[in-house]
Amino acid sequence: MILKNKLGGKRDKVPIIVQKYGGSSVADAERMKRVAARIIEKHGQGFQMVVVVSAMGDVTDDLIETAKRLSASPPQREMDMLLATGEQQSAALLAMTLCETGQPALSLSGPQAGVISDGVFGKARIRRIETERIRKELDEGKIIVVAGFQGLDDNGDVNTLGRGGSDTTAAALAIALQAEACEIFTDVSGVYTADPRFVPRARKLDSVSYDEMLEMASLGAGVLHPRSVELAKQFGMKLTVRSSFNNEEGTVVREEQNMPGELEKESLVCGVAKDLDVLKFTIFGVKDAPGQAAAIFSPLAAAQVNVDMIVQSGAANHLQDISFTTGKADKGKAVKVLECFIANAGAERYKIEENVAKLSIVGAGMISRPGVAAKMFGVLAETGCNINIISTSEIKISCIIEAEKAAAAAGALHTAFGLDAQ
Amino acid sequence: MILKNKLGGKRDKVPIIVQKYGGSSVADAERMKRVAARIIEKHGQGFQMVVVVSAMGDVTDDLIETAKRLSASPPQREMDMLLATGEQQSAALLAMTLCETGQPALSLSGPQAGVISDGVFGKARIRRIETERIRKELDEGKIIVVAGFQGLDDNGDVNTLGRGGSDTTAAALAIALQAEACEIFTDVSGVYTADPRFVPRARKLDSVSYDEMLEMASLGAGVLHPRSVELAKQFGMKLTVRSSFNNEEGTVVREEQNMPGELEKESLVCGVAKDLDVLKFTIFGVKDAPGQAAAIFSPLAAAQVNVDMIVQSGAANHLQDISFTTGKADKGKAVKVLECFIANAGAERYKIEENVAKLSIVGAGMISRPGVAAKMFGVLAETGCNINIISTSEIKISCIIEAEKAAAAAGALHTAFGLDAQ
Repeated sequence: MILKNKLGGKRDKVPIIVQKYGGSSVADAERMKRVAARIIEKHGQGFQMVVVVSAMGDVTDDLIETAKRLSASPPQREMDMLLATGEQQSAALLAMTLCETGQPALSLSGPQAGVISDGVFGKARIRRIETERIRKELDEGKIIVVAGFQGLDDNGDVNTLGRGGSDTTAAALAIALQAEACEIFTDVSGVYTADPRFVPRARKLDSVSYDEMLEMASLGAGVLHPRSVELAKQFGMKLTVRSSFNNEEGTVVREEQNMPGELEKESLVCGVAKDLDVLKFTIFGVKDAPGQAAAIFSPLAAAQVNVDMIVQSGAANHLQDISFTTGKADKGKAVKVLECFIANAGAERYKIEENVAKLSIVGAGMISRPGVAAKMFGVLAETGCNINIISTSEIKISCIIEAEKAAAAAGALHTAFGLDAQ
Repeated sequence: MILKNKLGGKRDKVPIIVQKYGGSSVADAERMKRVAARIIEKHGQGFQMVVVVSAMGDVTDDLIETAKRLSASPPQREMDMLLATGEQQSAALLAMTLCETGQPALSLSGPQAGVISDGVFGKARIRRIETERIRKELDEGKIIVVAGFQGLDDNGDVNTLGRGGSDTTAAALAIALQAEACEIFTDVSGVYTADPRFVPRARKLDSVSYDEMLEMASLGAGVLHPRSVELAKQFGMKLTVRSSFNNEEGTVVREEQNMPGELEKESLVCGVAKDLDVLKFTIFGVKDAPGQAAAIFSPLAAAQVNVDMIVQSGAANHLQDISFTTGKADKGKAVKVLECFIANAGAERYKIEENVAKLSIVGAGMISRPGVAAKMFGVLAETGCNINIISTSEIKISCIIEAEKAAAAAGALHTAFGLDAQ
């Protein structure tokens, strides 16, 4: 690193590294100290360091538990106020741990770090980051520890960014600060072809494209918050996913490498994802008239329900069935909307299926190769799965199947698409 | 309460009540719900309610414990960042509990509530309160729950106000909002003539003057934060101290009632206080020259050491001994200052006594009655106490004695000054 140019005058810009440590990486004093040592080592290599932390271990779950004992449906604004404290605590504790080694460090809450969010409690998006304070403190030689997962809206209220939101804080900070790198430290060593807990033959990928990661992330692979990948893709920020418990290389998430040679190296499909956080709603007897779909999905959007897959069956007697899926947490809000829709005679009835899973295969390679979907359906048939809903994108195919068959089916797909280790 | 005047036009001002609930009053879900019921009852009587809360039960101690596992001497800025989360959590949880009953409520952190502090981490003072947000939310019919003990300084950093600082938040808010009343709810039923834990014959006072309370508060009686009484006195805000666990009347802290009749009713001395949080420093061989006291006490003040009593003995050989007392928490900082003073040949040596206590009697009545001090010294002599340092004010006499004799001596003083119940 060059601090001064040859004329000894103007100071060149010191490169910035953004690191993010998840809740399990800072769960206790021992781990917190290991994380501090890792940060100081990197700092010693000549980087300005901005570190984003999640709440320690089970702190967030404990706070949610406490809230539930007091309120059946606590206002989301107050939940955000409550949960934001978890990250603020770990930021302060990590800053102390760094200071203890003699290294100046400073914790900042999301609002103090200039993270401005859009005011949607519980699942806010970052609008922008005002980096003046961070830059000033960095230039004074401090390591900055930022509480992830939170921002301040225009009303002066604290918003949280949803589960995993600290990844997004890290990506947004890396972009705003034009960082050299954004390293996401977690409790796994990188991105795998499938969750090693249910597919033991899964192997770690050296690299994965933004689009593939995005599909993996939104499919419950759970390693990165989807919004962080979206942001990184939009601004071309390279993300590295690695473990805080070892020194393995990890997986680089970056722009698709468009060399045929590379495409051959990686297989057609780069991963299999299984998501159990799925609810399937079916609305029966929807009138076959213009505007009916909008009359269902506009109020769902207004109620902040994240709808994933949508299928509409062919009309019989001018009536249709419409199915869609959401995450389990949105059940209450979705039910309210549907009951209102049915009460207004928009449909006959609805049903909810809770015992379903979404199984997906992801791979940028599948665009150019026909037959991938057919092969997937064949494997699922062999495993005895009834396919319920199918949805495809250019780099992903997802099927809703019975939850209890999901693990076996994922393993079979992993083998069939040549992803098994060795 | 009159919401509209007789012409049905202009809306009269709704009276505001500020209540403060201490940590033991909101220590668990059951207590939190009882507190919510109490607040709603008062609100139903036609008041706008602003409620200040402390951290739940042991939360603050647990956070301090966690910090100590990571850092031997954590930076006070980071401690403030950490500890402020405790109050923020209980504010959010109490707001949820209120909302659960159908009553709109909103939690605000100290910074959000407009509490502006002076930037002294760990023991900040409130400079002013910007009440716009609170007033706006009150006018929308919400009960406001403010996280006590914290403010925002001009750098955008969180300051805490020191142990018991939530009382000060409540008093300051009551003053800024021109509240009708400021009720401090705690785990005791009011202000007693002595701590009932060590003087079983102690009785509750119906009222006490600001000055008496101030002396009691700063003497470790521990019911109210001294700064809150100072503020209340300065602005003539009446404080009521009462228990959140029963419906007893409590003690009113107010301006001295200057009627002779009342003075007779209350006795000469209104309370006996025992404070074990005392360190006695003695510096030997200080040169008998101008500026020596300043050379000791200016750096102590700069190091934020709260010096309480000071005694300077007569000079022998142009050398003096100077003794002073501080709280136990200031030991490290005071030692540094003294070592520096001695290294610069300002004195010969120093010693610290840790096994001491401060015993005080307080009463506005003693100004006009001679012999109170003599009577106190006599009682202490009978109890076998060596008096170490004496300090007197118009309404208080304090003595430093051996810690192990403090409880018995407090009981003897309580009896001798006619404070025993019945």
